[in-house]
This record gives sequence, C-alpha cells and structure tokens, in this order.
Amino acid sequence: MNILVLNCGSSTLKFQVLDTDPEKIRTDGDVLKAIGLVERIGSQALCKFTATGQPPVKQALALRDHRAAIDEVLRWLLSDASQVDIHSLADLHAVGHRVVHGGERFQSSVLIDETVLEGIDDCIDLAPLHNPANLKGIRAATDLLGKGVPQVAVFDTAFHATMPEVAYLYGIPYQLYRRYKIRRYGFHGTSHRYIAYRYRTLHNLRKEQVNIISLHLGNGCSACAISAGQSLDTSMGFTPVEGLLMGTRSGDLDPSIIPFLCETEGLQLAEVETMLSKRSGLLGLSGLTGDMRELLDEERENQDRRARLAIDVFCLRARKYIGAYLAEMGGAEAVVFTGGIGENSPAVRLRICQGLEWLGLEVDPAANEALAGGATGTISRASARLKALVIPTNEELLIARDTVRCVEAGLTRR
Amino acid sequence: MNILVLNCGSSTLKFQVLDTDPEKIRTDGDVLKAIGLVERIGSQALCKFTATGQPPVKQALALRDHRAAIDEVLRWLLSDASQVDIHSLADLHAVGHRVVHGGERFQSSVLIDETVLEGIDDCIDLAPLHNPANLKGIRAATDLLGKGVPQVAVFDTAFHATMPEVAYLYGIPYQLYRRYKIRRYGFHGTSHRYIAYRYRTLHNLRKEQVNIISLHLGNGCSACAISAGQSLDTSMGFTPVEGLLMGTRSGDLDPSIIPFLCETEGLQLAEVETMLSKRSGLLGLSGLTGDMRELLDEERENQDRRARLAIDVFCLRARKYIGAYLAEMGGAEAVVFTGGIGENSPAVRLRICQGLEWLGLEVDPAANEALAGGATGTISRASARLKALVIPTNEELLIARDTVRCVEAGLTRR
Repeated sequence: MNILVLNCGSSTLKFQVLDTDPEKIRTDGDVLKAIGLVERIGSQALCKFTATGQPPVKQALALRDHRAAIDEVLRWLLSDASQVDIHSLADLHAVGHRVVHGGERFQSSVLIDETVLEGIDDCIDLAPLHNPANLKGIRAATDLLGKGVPQVAVFDTAFHATMPEVAYLYGIPYQLYRRYKIRRYGFHGTSHRYIAYRYRTLHNLRKEQVNIISLHLGNGCSACAISAGQSLDTSMGFTPVEGLLMGTRSGDLDPSIIPFLCETEGLQLAEVETMLSKRSGLLGLSGLTGDMRELLDEERENQDRRARLAIDVFCLRARKYIGAYLAEMGGAEAVVFTGGIGENSPAVRLRICQGLEWLGLEVDPAANEALAGGATGTISRASARLKALVIPTNEELLIARDTVRCVEAGLTRR
Repeated sequence: MNILVLNCGSSTLKFQVLDTDPEKIRTDGDVLKAIGLVERIGSQALCKFTATGQPPVKQALALRDHRAAIDEVLRWLLSDASQVDIHSLADLHAVGHRVVHGGERFQSSVLIDETVLEGIDDCIDLAPLHNPANLKGIRAATDLLGKGVPQVAVFDTAFHATMPEVAYLYGIPYQLYRRYKIRRYGFHGTSHRYIAYRYRTLHNLRKEQVNIISLHLGNGCSACAISAGQSLDTSMGFTPVEGLLMGTRSGDLDPSIIPFLCETEGLQLAEVETMLSKRSGLLGLSGLTGDMRELLDEERENQDRRARLAIDVFCLRARKYIGAYLAEMGGAEAVVFTGGIGENSPAVRLRICQGLEWLGLEVDPAANEALAGGATGTISRASARLKALVIPTNEELLIARDTVRCVEAGLTRR
C-alpha cells in the first residue's frame, strides 16, 4: 500500500510516500518512495521534493494555504517528471496524519471520521497553535483525494497515554485537572515509540523488556522514561514548553517568573508566552542563535562565552533528566539519543554524559565520534552498566504503519 | 554570649535564646536557654514560650505588630517567672535575624548597619512577602534593645551563592538576568548548610569531602545538591514556589499553565500566584489538607484515594530530584532527610527511597522505623553504596553562631 504521510505545521508541510503493508511491516521491508517539505505556506512558499534515488527538486511559488501545498505535492507525485511510481490518485491508498494533541481521548491512532475530526477540534484549546494546522491538512486531503481514501490520525501525545497519574498530575488543585484536563500530556510520542521499537528489534527483546531513556534532541527536545516498553514519564508537559532546554523554548522555569515579568517588563501574558516559546532556550541564553551547530561553531572558533553557557545549560538539563528518570524507573538499560542534535552531534552527546560514570554510563569517545549522519550504534564502552546508543528516529515510518494497521482493521476508536 | 535569634514571618515570630561563643562553637557546647513562638500577630496573638527545662507558658493577647510581639518576648525573658537567666537587656549580647532574601549581594551573614538595611530593602522586589517582615523585626529589635546591641542578618539564600551559573540560569533571554537578576536563588540555605556541617562532623570529614543530597521536607520543601561542601544546585528557584511538591505550594509546573488558567478560569495573575502558593501542593491534590501527618492518617484509616495520590506525587518528586542531583554531582555519598516530615515520617522516607536500589540506596526498614522525634542516624543498610540518614536541622544554631562570628570579627560586608 502507498501511504502518504502528512505533517502540517502552522506554515509548513512535510510529507513522505511510503510503500508498506502487513507483510512489509513484519519483515521491515517498508519502502520510502518520496519525501518533501514545503515552507512559508501563505506567502512565497519554498518546496523541496525528492524521489528516492533522484536529486531533489526545489522551487519557489505562491501557495496560499495547506490545500494549495498538498495540491502541489500531489501534482508533483503524479507527474512523470517526479519519477515516483504514483501515476494516479488511485495509487495513493491511504493518508496518515501527524496530529499534535489527542488530549485524553485519543490513546492510539485512529481512522478519521466526523467524530474523530470533532475530537481533534475539541483539543484545540490544548494545542491552539498545532491542531488547527493538522485539521486543515486533513480537510485539504479529503477535498483533494476524495472521501474514499482512508485517513488516519497519529497523535504526538498517544504514546504517553500510559503514564500513571502520579507522573502526569501537577501539584495544583485537583479540580483543575477534572475541569480543564490540565495535566502532563507529553509530545514527540511517535518518536519515542519508534525508539522503543527500534531498540527492541536491535536487541531482540520483547516489548516488556525495553527499559530505556529516550532523548529526542532536535528543535524541540524531550526526554522519555520508557519502562516495560511504555511511556512512564516525559519532560514535555501540558505544553511543549516544559522540560529540556530547546532551540527557542525555555523548558523548566519557576512559574512565578511569569507574573514577575508581566509586572517589571509591563508585558502582556501573550507576550511572555511568545517569549518563552520563540526567544528563549539556546537562542535566549546565547543571544546568538537557537541552532546548536552554529553555537558549537561559535564556541570552537570564537570561544564565545554565552554560546558555551547555552550549550552547557542544555547538556546539564538533559543530564538531570537522565538521573531523574533512572530514579523514577528504578534503573534502565540504556540512554538513546535521537533527533537532529542527538543523531548528529557527538560533542553534545559527550557533554551530556559527562559525570554519569557514577551511574554506570561510560562513553567510548571513538565510537561516539564515529556516529553521525543517520547511523545507528552504541557509544558506551562494552563494560558500561548503563549503555548509550544513537538511533535515528523515524516518525513517518510509524505513521505509515499505523495507517496501514488502522485501515486493515477498519478500527475507529472513539 | 547570649544571642537572641529572631525569625519574623508575615504574622509570626519565632525566637530562641542561645548561649554561644567561639569556644562553645569549637566544642559544640552551645546552650539553648529559651525557645518560643508568637502566631497571629496583628490580632489576638497566641504565644508559646518555653525556658529550657521548664513547662511551656501559653497565653493569648492582643499584639498589633512585630514590635509588640518582640516586646512581649523580652518582658517574658526578663521576668523572674520565666526562669531564664536573662535579668536585664544588657544580658542579651546580640541579635541574629533570619532574612529570607539576600539577592546576589549578600553571599554570607553580615553585621547589620544602615547600608545593609538598604540592601535588604532592595531585595523586597524579589521577596515581597518575606523581606518586609524581616525588616520590621530588625527595626523593632533596634528600637527595643537600642543601637548598642549588634544585630546580624543570616540569609536563606546565602548558602546557595556558590551555585555555578549553569545551574542558576533559566532558559530565558539572558538580558532578563542582567536587567532584573531573574535566576535561581534557592532558599532553606541555613538548613542545608547545617546539614552539610552536621554530616561533616558526624563522619569526621573535611568540608571539601561532603558530597550529599540534602532533602529539607517541612511545610516548605527543597532539595540541595551539596558538592565538596558547597551548594551546587537546589530545587527552589527564583521563588520558593519551584521544585518539590509542598504543603500548599505547587512546586515544578509547566509555566504555560499560568496563562491558560488566567484565560479559562478568568483569574487575575495575582490570584493564580496565590493559588500556586496557598492552595496547591499536598492540599490541592488531596483536597483535604496540606499536613502530611493528616494525609498519612487518611490514607491508613480511610484508604482515601486522593490522600494517597498526593503523598505519592510528593515522594515521586523527591525521588526524581535525588536522581537528577546524582547525575549533576557525578554521584554522592548520602541522601540526608531533615525538616518536620524528613525527621518524623519513616513512611514517607521509605516511599521516597523505593526504587532507588538500582542507584545503590537500600533502606534498612527497622532502622528507618526507629528514627523520629529529633533523632539522628543512618537508615540505609551497611552495604549501601548510597547512604541515607536522618539529621534534624537546626537553623537557629547556625544563626546564633554566625551572629557571634560577625560580632567578633566586627565584619560588615557590603
């Protein structure tokens, strides 16, 4: 089955076309046919489309909304020029959508119908920036492909549905949880689930034997305590602002700083929220950039004090979460690095692990240095009681596979 | 030297009279002469005064401010009825004050003069609820005892002045630190310092050899990573709201919950702050009480689900901080419990330590059960790689000793 995987952000669209089915899932024989990205939807958009084995095709053109962007992707896929063996819309058998927030309602992937759409809409209060874009993508795909093509929603929050209430409740009046469902939800769930799955297959384990700490370090960053194959706790919370330091997000913060800033800086709450989301994290601390590669360059080439400081805070936060989760889980077998930074920055991995020898994690510097650019492997010494690995994430693969499974099962969870 | 130790809260006054001097400090020969508490200052106040070796004296009387309360304490001390060997004001040689916030300016205890008073006043922005009461206490003591009696300020924040910037900076724009000094300060510093000191003397260590995690669990709760005898990190932050779950304070929280609550509940920022401070924590989660003893009773006698939940969240948070600090410190020698809950609740200590066996902490249940009511001892098994101890805190002792030292040295730090 050819699955179109769509990930719609507020002004972006990422897609992949994967050929997968139950037999391919069983044998890990899924085939990636095409991959692409549209940025700056709403103005002069930038498209970069790549068929497997072909050079990327780049173009700039006016795309006023997600519908126009998806239409452009479909045109390209169907064109002879793309060299993807999708020749008519009938060759696309289903669509899998990344949906950010499933609230407490969606605890696994679901075949989309009107009721599911309403459910996703109900979660907009919880994810006002993300769910609307996801809904636009679903509606546009329905328009363009017709109602006959099944669509599946795969939620960023779903993997964390197994968290116990002791991990997901905040220390605020309980009725606020009852009334508004204010709790830890966690995000990056599909990525952490993929890491658990890959770790299991790499080590020939049953799901219940997977006890690892997954560190997804990209633009957004989150840690996940995966115990017996399930999410036990995660660092992102009610929103993706909490937890680790990120490119432009603050992560953990004394909540009293918000009213203090409103008062002293004369800011509106919405302005403080924007600041914590867009101008904090690595960018805020360094004053330079939220891009880890650029910070590492600044530190190395110019000995920039605040670049070093931002990286150090980033690494300390990650290290503290590793310790916290080891305590919460009662020990773990491995720490797994993934995401853009986790997969590609040996220097950051090394700095995060510094000081963890007491906890049993000893990095093999040569093995660590050698792993980048999409490679999978172990970076700890053979003797380490707590292993460290690098596993490139692949959320799209799980979205495609979930789509196949939901379509096959005709499952609708409500 | 007879030192009057004063701890002024917004409507409370706690005091001790301690006889100490350099020789008594050296030999641990300080003598507690009297101890007392005044509650509900401003209306019908309740006083409870106890001379060492005598039964407590309780009375209710109208005391309109801290000056009136201190005056009442002095009258009682000087009276023959109290049986304290303080017969005239000249027998009180100095006063030591607990001051909550010393900002970045006061990194150790200081002899109070006009400049110091201005400095404490300058920190009111950072501690609007606490520093004003502390200042009232200092001014009232000056009025009543005269300018000739030296007074010393001992800051709750001072012990944490050794934190490195990587631990005290938040992930927000760096200029907010420069402009408003928004950073982690930490509190309970005198308690954590006392724990470090007692641990050192109990084990005959030099200060640099003290590597412990101190858990002060009382109405307010905080954890402190003490590395080489110094505070390396602590869980309370810019304010005492951050960190562990407390009686009525939320502790760690996704900061985005604040704007969400303002919007959905139609609350003002000040109302949310009050809620996070006064109606959250154990009280908020249980819906019953912020008192751990009552929650343990409810859980045992009535199997109350939310009482258990509140205790479980409390213990999980403490456990996670132990793990986080082990990672940050590169290992530690012991976890030390102190404060009302830490000293008196074997059940809570046991639950916090559950699951920490992997990290090397194994509790000896009998030893743990036996330690309460002000006793000092070890609660981990002899084989434990990470020890656990109970050490009752004694902030007043350090305040009295700091007072002696500052008076002797005639030190004024500015």
